[in-house]
Amino acid sequence: MSSPLTLASEHRCFGGSVAFYRHASQACGGEMRFGVFTPPQAASRKVPVLYYLAGLTCTEETFLAKGGAQRLAAELGVMLVAPDTSPRGAGLPGEDDAWDFGTGAGFYVDATQPPWASRYRMYTYVTQELPALVTGHLPARPDREGIFGHSMGGHGALVCALRQPGRYRSVSAFAPIAAPMRCPWGKKAFGGYLGPDTEAWKAWDASELVRGLRQPLPALLVDQGTRDKFLAEQLLPEQLREACAAVGQPLTLRMQEGYDHSYFFVSTFMEDHLRHHAAALNA
Amino acid sequence: MSSPLTLASEHRCFGGSVAFYRHASQACGGEMRFGVFTPPQAASRKVPVLYYLAGLTCTEETFLAKGGAQRLAAELGVMLVAPDTSPRGAGLPGEDDAWDFGTGAGFYVDATQPPWASRYRMYTYVTQELPALVTGHLPARPDREGIFGHSMGGHGALVCALRQPGRYRSVSAFAPIAAPMRCPWGKKAFGGYLGPDTEAWKAWDASELVRGLRQPLPALLVDQGTRDKFLAEQLLPEQLREACAAVGQPLTLRMQEGYDHSYFFVSTFMEDHLRHHAAALNA
Repeated sequence: MSSPLTLASEHRCFGGSVAFYRHASQACGGEMRFGVFTPPQAASRKVPVLYYLAGLTCTEETFLAKGGAQRLAAELGVMLVAPDTSPRGAGLPGEDDAWDFGTGAGFYVDATQPPWASRYRMYTYVTQELPALVTGHLPARPDREGIFGHSMGGHGALVCALRQPGRYRSVSAFAPIAAPMRCPWGKKAFGGYLGPDTEAWKAWDASELVRGLRQPLPALLVDQGTRDKFLAEQLLPEQLREACAAVGQPLTLRMQEGYDHSYFFVSTFMEDHLRHHAAALNA
Repeated sequence: MSSPLTLASEHRCFGGSVAFYRHASQACGGEMRFGVFTPPQAASRKVPVLYYLAGLTCTEETFLAKGGAQRLAAELGVMLVAPDTSPRGAGLPGEDDAWDFGTGAGFYVDATQPPWASRYRMYTYVTQELPALVTGHLPARPDREGIFGHSMGGHGALVCALRQPGRYRSVSAFAPIAAPMRCPWGKKAFGGYLGPDTEAWKAWDASELVRGLRQPLPALLVDQGTRDKFLAEQLLPEQLREACAAVGQPLTLRMQEGYDHSYFFVSTFMEDHLRHHAAALNA
Protein backbone atom coordinates (compact mmCIF):
# COMPACT_ATOMS: atom_id res chain seq x y z
CA MET A 1 0.00 0.00 0.00
CA SER A 2 1.44 3.38 -0.89
CA SER A 3 1.66 5.97 1.85
CA PRO A 4 -1.03 8.65 1.96
CA LEU A 5 1.73 11.06 3.02
CA THR A 6 3.65 13.11 0.46
CA LEU A 7 7.04 14.23 1.72
CA ALA A 8 7.44 17.91 0.83
CA SER A 9 10.90 18.35 2.37
CA GLU A 10 13.20 16.72 4.89
CA HIS A 11 16.08 18.21 6.87
CA ARG A 12 18.53 16.48 9.14
CA CYS A 13 18.39 18.10 12.57
CA PHE A 14 20.02 17.19 15.90
CA GLY A 15 20.77 13.69 14.72
CA GLY A 16 17.15 13.11 13.72
CA SER A 17 15.11 14.82 11.04
CA VAL A 18 12.53 17.51 10.45
CA ALA A 19 10.09 16.54 7.70
CA PHE A 20 7.10 18.31 6.21
CA TYR A 21 4.23 16.29 4.76
CA ARG A 22 1.15 16.96 2.65
CA HIS A 23 -1.82 14.63 2.46
CA ALA A 24 -5.46 14.44 1.49
CA SER A 25 -7.56 14.93 4.61
CA GLN A 26 -10.96 13.34 5.07
CA ALA A 27 -11.70 15.42 8.15
CA CYS A 28 -10.94 18.69 6.38
CA GLY A 29 -12.07 17.77 2.88
CA GLY A 30 -8.84 18.77 1.16
CA GLU A 31 -5.09 18.91 1.47
CA MET A 32 -3.56 19.38 4.89
CA ARG A 33 0.06 19.81 5.95
CA PHE A 34 2.08 18.99 9.03
CA GLY A 35 5.65 18.94 10.23
CA VAL A 36 7.43 16.24 12.25
CA PHE A 37 10.65 16.06 14.20
CA THR A 38 11.73 12.44 14.46
CA PRO A 39 14.36 11.96 17.15
CA PRO A 40 17.37 9.70 16.62
CA GLN A 41 15.98 7.04 18.98
CA ALA A 42 13.25 6.31 16.42
CA ALA A 43 15.82 4.57 14.23
CA SER A 44 15.57 1.56 16.51
CA ARG A 45 12.18 1.77 18.25
CA LYS A 46 8.86 3.57 18.23
CA VAL A 47 8.90 6.70 20.36
CA PRO A 48 6.31 8.77 22.25
CA VAL A 49 4.75 11.60 20.31
CA LEU A 50 4.07 15.14 21.43
CA TYR A 51 1.61 17.23 19.41
CA TYR A 52 2.12 20.99 19.23
CA LEU A 53 -0.74 23.25 18.15
CA ALA A 54 0.33 26.66 16.91
CA GLY A 55 -1.38 30.02 17.21
CA LEU A 56 -3.16 32.47 14.93
CA THR A 57 -1.48 33.08 11.55
CA CYS A 58 1.05 30.30 12.09
CA THR A 59 1.70 27.28 9.89
CA GLU A 60 3.12 23.79 10.32
CA GLU A 61 6.59 25.35 10.09
CA THR A 62 6.41 27.92 12.88
CA PHE A 63 7.09 25.71 15.87
CA LEU A 64 9.82 23.68 14.22
CA ALA A 65 11.57 26.82 12.96
CA LYS A 66 11.24 29.03 16.04
CA GLY A 67 10.37 26.88 19.04
CA GLY A 68 13.86 25.62 19.77
CA ALA A 69 12.48 22.23 20.82
CA GLN A 70 14.44 19.80 18.68
CA ARG A 71 17.65 19.82 20.71
CA LEU A 72 15.99 18.53 23.84
CA ALA A 73 13.44 16.36 22.03
CA ALA A 74 16.40 14.56 20.45
CA GLU A 75 17.86 13.98 23.88
CA LEU A 76 14.56 12.88 25.41
CA GLY A 77 13.57 10.66 22.51
CA VAL A 78 10.23 12.33 21.82
CA MET A 79 8.68 12.84 18.39
CA LEU A 80 7.21 16.30 17.76
CA VAL A 81 4.22 16.71 15.42
CA ALA A 82 3.05 20.18 14.36
CA PRO A 83 -0.08 20.47 12.20
CA ASP A 84 -1.04 23.53 10.23
CA THR A 85 -3.52 25.87 11.92
CA SER A 86 -6.35 25.51 9.39
CA PRO A 87 -7.22 24.26 5.92
CA ARG A 88 -5.61 26.39 3.20
CA GLY A 89 -7.22 27.53 0.00
CA ALA A 90 -10.55 25.96 0.84
CA GLY A 91 -12.25 28.56 -1.35
CA LEU A 92 -14.85 29.46 1.25
CA PRO A 93 -16.24 33.01 1.08
CA GLY A 94 -14.39 35.29 3.47
CA GLU A 95 -11.77 32.74 4.49
CA ASP A 96 -8.94 35.21 3.91
CA ASP A 97 -10.67 38.38 5.09
CA ALA A 98 -9.26 38.38 8.62
CA TRP A 99 -6.16 37.09 10.38
CA ASP A 100 -8.17 35.83 13.34
CA PHE A 101 -10.83 33.81 11.48
CA GLY A 102 -10.67 31.38 8.57
CA THR A 103 -7.27 30.62 7.07
CA GLY A 104 -4.64 30.31 9.78
CA ALA A 105 -7.29 30.46 12.49
CA GLY A 106 -9.08 27.13 12.66
CA PHE A 107 -9.29 27.26 16.47
CA TYR A 108 -9.13 23.43 16.68
CA VAL A 109 -12.91 23.07 16.73
CA ASP A 110 -15.24 21.11 14.44
CA ALA A 111 -17.30 23.80 12.77
CA THR A 112 -21.03 23.19 12.65
CA GLN A 113 -22.04 26.24 10.62
CA PRO A 114 -22.07 26.56 6.84
CA PRO A 115 -19.88 27.01 4.96
CA TRP A 116 -17.16 26.18 7.52
CA ALA A 117 -18.56 22.80 8.57
CA SER A 118 -17.47 21.24 5.30
CA ARG A 119 -13.76 21.96 5.83
CA TYR A 120 -12.95 23.46 9.22
CA ARG A 121 -12.92 20.29 11.29
CA MET A 122 -9.58 20.79 12.99
CA TYR A 123 -10.56 18.98 16.20
CA THR A 124 -11.30 15.75 14.39
CA TYR A 125 -8.18 16.32 12.33
CA VAL A 126 -5.74 16.79 15.18
CA THR A 127 -7.25 14.23 17.53
CA GLN A 128 -8.17 11.45 15.08
CA GLU A 129 -6.99 11.67 11.51
CA LEU A 130 -3.53 13.08 12.16
CA PRO A 131 -2.65 10.66 14.99
CA ALA A 132 -3.79 7.75 12.81
CA LEU A 133 -1.45 8.90 10.06
CA VAL A 134 1.41 9.50 12.47
CA THR A 135 1.18 6.17 14.24
CA GLY A 136 0.38 4.32 11.02
CA HIS A 137 3.23 5.66 8.92
CA LEU A 138 5.86 7.06 11.28
CA PRO A 139 7.72 5.40 14.18
CA ALA A 140 5.37 6.76 16.88
CA ARG A 141 3.80 4.86 19.76
CA PRO A 142 0.01 5.13 19.72
CA ASP A 143 -0.17 4.68 23.48
CA ARG A 144 2.11 7.57 24.45
CA GLU A 145 0.67 10.92 23.41
CA GLY A 146 1.17 14.37 24.85
CA ILE A 147 -0.20 17.68 23.61
CA PHE A 148 0.73 21.34 23.98
CA GLY A 149 0.45 24.58 22.10
CA HIS A 150 0.64 28.35 22.05
CA SER A 151 -2.14 30.94 22.23
CA MET A 152 -4.96 29.63 19.96
CA GLY A 153 -3.02 26.36 20.03
CA GLY A 154 -2.74 26.43 23.80
CA HIS A 155 -6.54 26.63 23.83
CA GLY A 156 -6.59 23.78 21.34
CA ALA A 157 -4.28 21.59 23.40
CA LEU A 158 -6.29 22.12 26.57
CA VAL A 159 -9.59 21.44 24.79
CA CYS A 160 -8.33 18.30 23.04
CA ALA A 161 -7.21 16.92 26.40
CA LEU A 162 -10.25 18.07 28.37
CA ARG A 163 -12.68 16.49 25.90
CA GLN A 164 -10.87 13.15 26.21
CA PRO A 165 -9.79 12.58 29.79
CA GLY A 166 -7.43 9.63 29.98
CA ARG A 167 -6.10 10.00 26.47
CA TYR A 168 -3.12 12.36 26.65
CA ARG A 169 -0.47 11.52 29.20
CA SER A 170 0.75 15.10 29.42
CA VAL A 171 -0.72 18.51 28.66
CA SER A 172 0.70 22.03 28.73
CA ALA A 173 0.25 25.43 27.14
CA PHE A 174 2.05 28.67 26.46
CA ALA A 175 -0.17 31.74 26.85
CA PRO A 176 -3.37 29.88 25.95
CA ILE A 177 -6.68 31.52 25.14
CA ALA A 178 -7.95 30.12 28.39
CA ALA A 179 -11.61 31.13 28.25
CA PRO A 180 -12.50 31.74 24.60
CA MET A 181 -16.22 32.28 25.30
CA ARG A 182 -15.26 35.39 27.24
CA CYS A 183 -12.81 37.07 24.84
CA PRO A 184 -13.15 38.79 21.45
CA TRP A 185 -11.05 36.25 19.51
CA GLY A 186 -13.05 33.37 20.90
CA LYS A 187 -16.44 34.99 20.48
CA LYS A 188 -15.70 35.76 16.85
CA ALA A 189 -14.37 32.29 16.10
CA PHE A 190 -17.04 30.38 18.01
CA GLY A 191 -19.80 32.55 16.57
CA GLY A 192 -18.56 31.87 13.06
CA TYR A 193 -17.72 28.19 13.38
CA LEU A 194 -20.33 27.12 15.95
CA GLY A 195 -23.18 29.57 15.47
CA PRO A 196 -24.98 31.98 17.81
CA ASP A 197 -26.06 29.50 20.51
CA THR A 198 -23.49 30.09 23.23
CA GLU A 199 -24.55 26.89 25.00
CA ALA A 200 -22.86 25.01 22.18
CA TRP A 201 -19.64 26.94 22.78
CA LYS A 202 -19.13 25.44 26.23
CA ALA A 203 -17.98 22.16 24.75
CA TRP A 204 -14.99 24.04 23.25
CA ASP A 205 -14.04 26.34 26.10
CA ALA A 206 -11.20 25.11 28.32
CA SER A 207 -12.39 26.82 31.48
CA GLU A 208 -15.95 25.56 30.99
CA LEU A 209 -14.71 22.04 30.25
CA VAL A 210 -12.61 22.03 33.42
CA ARG A 211 -15.72 22.80 35.46
CA GLY A 212 -17.41 19.76 33.99
CA LEU A 213 -14.54 17.31 34.54
CA ARG A 214 -15.47 14.04 36.16
CA GLN A 215 -11.92 12.73 36.34
CA PRO A 216 -8.88 14.97 36.64
CA LEU A 217 -6.36 15.30 33.85
CA PRO A 218 -2.66 14.96 34.49
CA ALA A 219 -1.32 18.14 36.12
CA LEU A 220 -1.46 21.01 33.64
CA LEU A 221 1.53 23.28 33.09
CA VAL A 222 0.77 26.77 31.76
CA ASP A 223 3.27 29.60 31.27
CA GLN A 224 2.03 33.14 30.71
CA GLY A 225 4.09 36.29 30.21
CA THR A 226 3.11 39.30 32.29
CA ARG A 227 3.87 41.76 29.46
CA ASP A 228 1.86 39.83 26.88
CA LYS A 229 -0.24 42.47 25.16
CA PHE A 230 -3.11 39.99 24.76
CA LEU A 231 -3.18 38.94 28.40
CA ALA A 232 -5.95 41.08 29.84
CA GLU A 233 -8.37 41.06 26.93
CA GLN A 234 -7.88 37.75 25.13
CA LEU A 235 -6.08 35.14 27.24
CA LEU A 236 -7.70 35.28 30.71
CA PRO A 237 -5.64 32.64 32.51
CA GLU A 238 -7.35 33.53 35.79
CA GLN A 239 -10.51 31.91 34.42
CA LEU A 240 -8.63 28.66 34.01
CA ARG A 241 -7.08 29.00 37.45
CA GLU A 242 -10.45 29.52 39.07
CA ALA A 243 -12.02 26.62 37.22
CA CYS A 244 -9.17 24.27 38.15
CA ALA A 245 -9.33 25.37 41.80
CA ALA A 246 -13.10 24.81 41.86
CA VAL A 247 -12.86 21.16 40.77
CA GLY A 248 -9.44 20.23 42.13
CA GLN A 249 -7.75 19.93 38.75
CA PRO A 250 -3.98 20.21 39.32
CA LEU A 251 -2.59 23.27 37.50
CA THR A 252 0.77 24.96 37.61
CA LEU A 253 0.18 28.44 36.18
CA ARG A 254 3.40 30.42 36.07
CA MET A 255 3.22 34.17 35.45
CA GLN A 256 6.57 34.94 33.81
CA GLU A 257 7.69 38.47 34.64
CA GLY A 258 8.34 40.68 31.63
CA TYR A 259 7.73 38.11 28.92
CA ASP A 260 5.49 38.81 25.93
CA HIS A 261 3.48 36.66 23.47
CA SER A 262 6.30 35.91 21.01
CA TYR A 263 8.40 32.83 20.35
CA PHE A 264 11.15 34.58 22.32
CA PHE A 265 8.89 33.77 25.27
CA VAL A 266 7.85 30.31 24.04
CA SER A 267 11.42 29.19 23.36
CA THR A 268 12.59 30.39 26.79
CA PHE A 269 10.27 27.97 28.59
CA MET A 270 10.33 25.19 25.99
CA GLU A 271 12.76 23.09 28.00
CA ASP A 272 10.52 23.09 31.05
CA HIS A 273 7.55 22.01 28.94
CA LEU A 274 9.46 19.26 27.17
CA ARG A 275 10.69 17.87 30.48
CA HIS A 276 7.13 18.06 31.84
CA HIS A 277 5.91 15.99 28.90
CA ALA A 278 8.84 13.58 28.80
CA ALA A 279 8.42 12.75 32.47
CA ALA A 280 4.97 11.37 31.65
CA LEU A 281 5.63 10.06 28.15
CA ASN A 282 8.78 8.16 29.04
CA ALA A 283 7.49 6.87 32.39
CA MET B 1 23.06 63.21 24.17
CA SER B 2 20.19 61.23 22.78
CA SER B 3 20.91 57.76 21.47
CA PRO B 4 21.26 57.31 17.72
CA LEU B 5 19.46 53.99 18.15
CA THR B 6 15.69 53.71 17.81
CA LEU B 7 14.26 50.71 19.61
CA ALA B 8 11.80 49.01 17.26
CA SER B 9 10.82 46.17 19.60
CA GLU B 10 12.10 44.37 22.67
CA HIS B 11 11.30 40.88 23.93
CA ARG B 12 12.36 39.24 27.14
CA CYS B 13 14.17 36.00 26.33
CA PHE B 14 16.07 33.52 28.50
CA GLY B 15 16.39 36.01 31.32
CA GLY B 16 17.88 38.64 29.00
CA SER B 17 16.31 40.39 26.05
CA VAL B 18 16.10 40.39 22.28
CA ALA B 19 15.87 43.92 20.90
CA PHE B 20 15.64 45.25 17.37
CA TYR B 21 17.05 48.67 16.54
CA ARG B 22 16.92 51.11 13.63
CA HIS B 23 19.42 53.90 13.10
CA ALA B 24 20.78 56.29 10.51
CA SER B 25 23.93 54.78 9.03
CA GLN B 26 26.80 56.89 7.76
CA ALA B 27 28.49 53.90 6.15
CA CYS B 28 25.37 52.89 4.23
CA GLY B 29 23.88 56.33 3.66
CA GLY B 30 20.46 55.52 5.06
CA GLU B 31 18.59 53.57 7.68
CA MET B 32 20.01 50.24 8.86
CA ARG B 33 18.61 47.67 11.25
CA PHE B 34 20.09 45.14 13.64
CA GLY B 35 19.03 42.75 16.37
CA VAL B 36 20.71 42.13 19.72
CA PHE B 37 20.42 39.47 22.39
CA THR B 38 21.64 40.90 25.68
CA PRO B 39 22.35 38.15 28.21
CA PRO B 40 21.34 38.50 31.86
CA GLN B 41 24.95 39.02 32.97
CA ALA B 42 24.92 42.41 31.22
CA ALA B 43 22.72 43.78 33.99
CA SER B 44 25.82 44.06 36.17
CA ARG B 45 28.80 44.23 33.79
CA LYS B 46 29.80 44.67 30.18
CA VAL B 47 29.93 41.40 28.30
CA PRO B 48 31.77 40.04 25.24
CA VAL B 49 29.98 40.45 21.94
CA LEU B 50 29.58 37.93 19.15
CA TYR B 51 28.55 39.21 15.72
CA TYR B 52 26.48 36.95 13.46
CA LEU B 53 26.25 37.67 9.75
CA ALA B 54 23.27 36.06 8.01
CA GLY B 55 22.93 34.68 4.50
CA LEU B 56 21.20 35.66 1.28
CA THR B 57 17.59 36.88 1.65
CA CYS B 58 17.84 36.98 5.44
CA THR B 59 17.23 39.94 7.75
CA GLU B 60 18.33 41.03 11.21
CA GLU B 61 15.59 38.76 12.60
CA THR B 62 16.55 35.45 11.03
CA PHE B 63 19.29 34.34 13.38
CA LEU B 64 17.54 35.45 16.55
CA ALA B 65 14.30 33.73 15.48
CA LYS B 66 15.71 30.48 14.07
CA GLY B 67 19.29 30.04 15.28
CA GLY B 68 18.47 28.72 18.74
CA ALA B 69 21.46 30.56 20.20
CA GLN B 70 19.95 32.58 23.03
CA ARG B 71 19.64 29.74 25.55
CA LEU B 72 23.35 29.06 25.63
CA ALA B 73 24.41 32.69 25.09
CA ALA B 74 22.46 33.50 28.26
CA GLU B 75 24.38 30.81 30.10
CA LEU B 76 27.76 31.85 28.66
CA GLY B 77 27.20 35.58 29.16
CA VAL B 78 27.76 36.56 25.54
CA MET B 79 25.91 39.31 23.68
CA LEU B 80 24.75 38.41 20.17
CA VAL B 81 24.51 41.10 17.49
CA ALA B 82 22.85 40.35 14.14
CA PRO B 83 22.87 43.06 11.45
CA ASP B 84 20.62 43.08 8.42
CA THR B 85 22.16 41.68 5.22
CA SER B 86 22.05 44.88 3.15
CA PRO B 87 20.57 48.36 3.01
CA ARG B 88 16.79 48.31 2.37
CA GLY B 89 14.88 50.58 0.08
CA ALA B 90 17.97 52.37 -1.15
CA GLY B 91 16.16 53.11 -4.39
CA LEU B 92 19.04 51.96 -6.58
CA PRO B 93 18.10 50.66 -10.03
CA GLY B 94 17.81 46.88 -10.01
CA GLU B 95 18.26 46.50 -6.26
CA ASP B 96 15.21 44.22 -6.00
CA ASP B 97 15.58 42.35 -9.28
CA ALA B 98 17.37 39.28 -7.90
CA TRP B 99 17.51 37.45 -4.59
CA ASP B 100 21.29 37.03 -4.81
CA PHE B 101 22.27 40.64 -5.52
CA GLY B 102 21.18 43.97 -4.07
CA THR B 103 18.60 43.94 -1.29
CA GLY B 104 19.27 41.09 1.13
CA ALA B 105 22.56 40.32 -0.57
CA GLY B 106 25.14 42.90 0.46
CA PHE B 107 27.91 40.29 0.68
CA TYR B 108 29.67 42.28 3.45
CA VAL B 109 31.91 44.12 1.00
CA ASP B 110 32.40 47.85 0.43
CA ALA B 111 31.12 48.38 -3.09
CA THR B 112 33.33 50.46 -5.36
CA GLN B 113 31.06 50.55 -8.41
CA PRO B 114 28.22 52.97 -9.09
CA PRO B 115 25.49 53.05 -8.06
CA TRP B 116 26.24 50.57 -5.28
CA ALA B 117 29.24 52.39 -3.81
CA SER B 118 26.99 55.07 -2.33
CA ARG B 119 25.03 52.65 -0.12
CA TYR B 120 26.39 49.08 -0.16
CA ARG B 121 29.26 49.46 2.29
CA MET B 122 28.44 46.53 4.52
CA TYR B 123 32.06 45.79 5.45
CA THR B 124 32.59 49.22 6.95
CA TYR B 125 29.16 48.95 8.54
CA VAL B 126 29.69 45.61 10.29
CA THR B 127 33.33 46.15 11.26
CA GLN B 128 33.30 49.84 12.23
CA GLU B 129 29.99 51.65 12.50
CA LEU B 130 27.96 48.85 14.06
CA PRO B 131 30.60 47.91 16.69
CA ALA B 132 30.94 51.59 17.65
CA LEU B 133 27.19 51.80 18.19
CA VAL B 134 27.10 48.52 20.10
CA THR B 135 29.96 49.31 22.44
CA GLY B 136 28.91 52.94 22.76
CA HIS B 137 25.27 52.38 23.62
CA LEU B 138 24.91 48.78 24.82
CA PRO B 139 26.71 46.91 27.61
CA ALA B 140 29.32 45.32 25.34
CA ARG B 141 33.07 45.10 25.85
CA PRO B 142 34.97 46.68 22.94
CA ASP B 143 37.96 44.40 23.55
CA ARG B 144 36.14 41.07 23.31
CA GLU B 145 34.70 40.50 19.86
CA GLY B 146 33.94 37.30 18.00
CA ILE B 147 32.33 36.86 14.60
CA PHE B 148 30.47 34.09 12.79
CA GLY B 149 27.85 33.65 10.13
CA HIS B 150 26.05 31.42 7.67
CA SER B 151 26.53 31.04 3.91
CA MET B 152 27.03 34.58 2.53
CA GLY B 153 27.46 35.58 6.18
CA GLY B 154 29.99 32.81 6.77
CA HIS B 155 31.96 34.35 3.92
CA GLY B 156 31.47 37.74 5.55
CA ALA B 157 32.67 36.56 8.96
CA LEU B 158 35.79 34.96 7.53
CA VAL B 159 36.60 38.03 5.43
CA CYS B 160 36.05 40.48 8.30
CA ALA B 161 38.46 38.47 10.44
CA LEU B 162 41.00 37.80 7.70
CA ARG B 163 41.25 41.48 6.76
CA GLN B 164 41.97 42.40 10.40
CA PRO B 165 44.19 39.75 12.00
CA GLY B 166 44.35 40.29 15.72
CA ARG B 167 40.96 41.91 16.03
CA TYR B 168 38.45 39.12 16.54
CA ARG B 169 39.20 36.67 19.32
CA SER B 170 37.12 33.92 17.74
CA VAL B 171 35.86 33.13 14.24
CA SER B 172 33.57 30.42 12.84
CA ALA B 173 31.20 29.78 9.98
CA PHE B 174 28.29 27.57 8.96
CA ALA B 175 28.42 26.53 5.31
CA PRO B 176 30.34 29.63 4.19
CA ILE B 177 30.81 30.71 0.61
CA ALA B 178 34.45 29.84 1.04
CA ALA B 179 35.88 30.98 -2.29
CA PRO B 180 33.48 33.53 -3.78
CA MET B 181 35.76 34.37 -6.72
CA ARG B 182 35.24 30.82 -7.96
CA CYS B 183 31.46 30.43 -7.64
CA PRO B 184 28.48 31.94 -9.46
CA TRP B 185 27.06 33.79 -6.44
CA GLY B 186 30.42 35.39 -5.72
CA LYS B 187 31.22 36.25 -9.32
CA LYS B 188 27.87 37.97 -9.71
CA ALA B 189 28.18 39.91 -6.47
CA PHE B 190 31.82 40.87 -6.84
CA GLY B 191 31.33 41.83 -10.48
CA GLY B 192 28.46 44.09 -9.54
CA TYR B 193 29.84 45.62 -6.36
CA LEU B 194 33.58 45.62 -7.18
CA GLY B 195 33.71 45.78 -10.97
CA PRO B 196 35.28 43.59 -13.64
CA ASP B 197 38.89 43.62 -12.40
CA THR B 198 39.20 40.28 -10.65
CA GLU B 199 42.46 41.36 -8.99
CA ALA B 200 40.35 43.64 -6.82
CA TRP B 201 38.18 40.69 -5.80
CA LYS B 202 41.04 38.95 -3.99
CA ALA B 203 40.80 41.35 -1.06
CA TRP B 204 37.27 40.01 -0.41
CA ASP B 205 37.78 36.27 -0.96
CA ALA B 206 38.37 34.20 2.17
CA SER B 207 40.53 31.57 0.50
CA GLU B 208 42.66 34.20 -1.22
CA LEU B 209 43.00 36.18 1.99
CA VAL B 210 44.15 33.08 3.87
CA ARG B 211 46.95 32.59 1.35
CA GLY B 212 48.16 36.11 2.07
CA LEU B 213 48.06 35.84 5.87
CA ARG B 214 51.19 37.00 7.64
CA GLN B 215 49.97 36.10 11.12
CA PRO B 216 47.54 33.26 11.77
CA LEU B 217 44.03 33.89 13.02
CA PRO B 218 42.63 32.00 15.99
CA ALA B 219 41.68 28.47 14.94
CA LEU B 220 38.72 28.60 12.57
CA LEU B 221 35.70 26.33 13.08
CA VAL B 222 33.63 25.58 9.98
CA ASP B 223 30.68 23.19 9.75
CA GLN B 224 29.37 22.09 6.36
CA GLY B 225 26.51 19.71 5.61
CA THR B 226 27.20 16.99 3.07
CA ARG B 227 23.68 17.20 1.61
CA ASP B 228 23.78 20.96 1.19
CA LYS B 229 22.51 21.57 -2.34
CA PHE B 230 24.88 24.52 -2.73
CA LEU B 231 27.98 22.66 -1.64
CA ALA B 232 29.58 21.66 -4.92
CA GLU B 233 28.79 24.75 -6.98
CA GLN B 234 28.71 27.67 -4.56
CA LEU B 235 30.39 26.90 -1.22
CA LEU B 236 33.70 25.16 -2.09
CA PRO B 237 35.04 24.52 1.43
CA GLU B 238 37.92 22.51 -0.04
CA GLN B 239 39.37 25.77 -1.32
CA LEU B 240 39.49 27.10 2.21
CA ARG B 241 40.95 23.85 3.50
CA GLU B 242 43.72 23.92 0.90
CA ALA B 243 44.53 27.55 1.58
CA CYS B 244 44.68 27.01 5.33
CA ALA B 245 46.87 23.95 4.89
CA ALA B 246 49.22 25.90 2.59
CA VAL B 247 49.91 28.61 5.14
CA GLY B 248 49.46 26.72 8.40
CA GLN B 249 46.26 28.47 9.43
CA PRO B 250 44.48 26.24 11.98
CA LEU B 251 41.10 25.13 10.66
CA THR B 252 38.60 22.59 11.90
CA LEU B 253 36.37 21.83 8.92
CA ARG B 254 33.68 19.35 9.84
CA MET B 255 31.68 17.72 7.08
CA GLN B 256 28.34 16.93 8.73
CA GLU B 257 26.78 13.85 7.19
CA GLY B 258 23.30 14.34 5.79
CA TYR B 259 22.81 17.96 6.81
CA ASP B 260 21.58 20.61 4.36
CA HIS B 261 21.85 24.41 4.13
CA SER B 262 18.90 25.29 6.38
CA TYR B 263 18.65 26.60 9.91
CA PHE B 264 17.80 23.02 10.91
CA PHE B 265 21.51 22.46 10.20
CA VAL B 266 22.72 25.75 11.69
CA SER B 267 20.78 25.28 14.94
CA THR B 268 22.08 21.73 15.34
CA PHE B 269 25.68 22.90 15.57
CA MET B 270 25.02 26.26 17.24
CA GLU B 271 26.07 24.98 20.65
CA ASP B 272 29.49 23.89 19.38
CA HIS B 273 30.04 27.28 17.77
CA LEU B 274 28.95 29.23 20.83
CA ARG B 275 31.26 27.19 23.05
CA HIS B 276 34.10 27.73 20.54
CA HIS B 277 33.56 31.49 20.75
CA ALA B 278 32.97 31.66 24.49
CA ALA B 279 36.19 29.79 25.20
CA ALA B 280 38.09 32.66 23.59
CA LEU B 281 35.79 35.53 24.55
CA ASN B 282 35.56 34.61 28.22
CA ALA B 283 39.23 33.62 28.57
